[in-house]
Amino acid sequence: MTFKTTILTLFPDAFPGVLGASIIGRGLETGAWSLETVHLRQFGEGKHKNVDDTPAGGGAGMVMRPDVIGAAIDSVPLQGRPLLYMSPRGKTLTQARVRELSAGPGVVMLCGRFEGLDERVIEARGMEEVSIGDYVLAGGEVAAQVLLEACVRLLPGVAGNAESLTHESFETGLLEHPQYTRPRTWEGHDIPDVLLSGDHKKIEEWRRSQAEALTKARRPDLYAAFQNTVATRARPES
Amino acid sequence: MTFKTTILTLFPDAFPGVLGASIIGRGLETGAWSLETVHLRQFGEGKHKNVDDTPAGGGAGMVMRPDVIGAAIDSVPLQGRPLLYMSPRGKTLTQARVRELSAGPGVVMLCGRFEGLDERVIEARGMEEVSIGDYVLAGGEVAAQVLLEACVRLLPGVAGNAESLTHESFETGLLEHPQYTRPRTWEGHDIPDVLLSGDHKKIEEWRRSQAEALTKARRPDLYAAFQNTVATRARPES
Repeated sequence: MTFKTTILTLFPDAFPGVLGASIIGRGLETGAWSLETVHLRQFGEGKHKNVDDTPAGGGAGMVMRPDVIGAAIDSVPLQGRPLLYMSPRGKTLTQARVRELSAGPGVVMLCGRFEGLDERVIEARGMEEVSIGDYVLAGGEVAAQVLLEACVRLLPGVAGNAESLTHESFETGLLEHPQYTRPRTWEGHDIPDVLLSGDHKKIEEWRRSQAEALTKARRPDLYAAFQNTVATRARPES
Repeated sequence: MTFKTTILTLFPDAFPGVLGASIIGRGLETGAWSLETVHLRQFGEGKHKNVDDTPAGGGAGMVMRPDVIGAAIDSVPLQGRPLLYMSPRGKTLTQARVRELSAGPGVVMLCGRFEGLDERVIEARGMEEVSIGDYVLAGGEVAAQVLLEACVRLLPGVAGNAESLTHESFETGLLEHPQYTRPRTWEGHDIPDVLLSGDHKKIEEWRRSQAEALTKARRPDLYAAFQNTVATRARPES
């Protein structure tokens, strides 16, 4: 089954961009996912195909017109896919949401530019606003690429080794433990002895304790959530 | 002054990618920022120019070798620029950090692939690990593009209207208020009356209250931080 993606954008040439490289690009070639772009300009108003106008009430910048965006959205058959609007005002993307999306039929994503969309079209079309983080971009295109890359790598057959997906950051509630490889000594620094011991139980324990210490130090917010989950799981049912 | 960026990657063709579009692309043409890519493969080991090897202690995937990555980094003159490693284990990127970086001379960014870098080279070269959010990507390239786009749009002369940068999400501690534009009535929905009143004080108050309500509803974490800031500012000095 192909994960179907449709991107509404003023910059269709920006796709696939970075998504054409490596395992994500190969997934596009093998049909694990498909990519369709819809140029917002073709729904523009008048001779100049305008898609934006000045903000009601004044202020800097331009706002994307609800009639233009509405017509663009209505041209796309959703086919059960969620309609996402990439916006710093949205709910912050998490690995859990990425998993959910990647298990579905695909996504339709609208990439805003300028000061964003007229609020009426966001509400009238029931768009889900999604933010990739607490910073501001020039447009939704690179945010859409982030979301797509995160989803596509989880599709069956895309990552070479499915096992490597289960130990990584966020899947366990912890940041990933440190990794080491050859050479055994580099610039006077050795690979930790335990990793060369061949004792798989000890190695697993060491990695787990490293992951916990790293998460506690760098991301106390994640660590607190992790401890809550562990406590909940350990509690006997009453 | 040009914001100088150097990207160490296995996929130099992925750049500029989406960064070639719109105002960011124009900024590259006008010299507001510069883009240099360094192909990690050229520092690889042996006939096949290997950059990775199996993880010490076992496990899935491959780890990037410290000698290869160290040599690649040492080939780049930092010239006062921070050395960033895009990684889900890093400190989460914020608009405040974006502002700091964009006020500096540029960035050097290492894009990981596979299971990431050998921990020794991260430590030995003093890399700053930066995460763009709590999800996992196939590689650091699209994360680097996010960071670059966020920084470059703040450079002088890149965004057409500097005023539009001061009201947006995160700059005030709040998500941005709703925007409206023509037509005045669309699918039976009107632009809110206050925005057409011409009363700039009322419009400002309405936008502020909308921004507060939106932030409170969608991002209680941001709203709590915002209230703390307001309370601190309001406190008289003793």
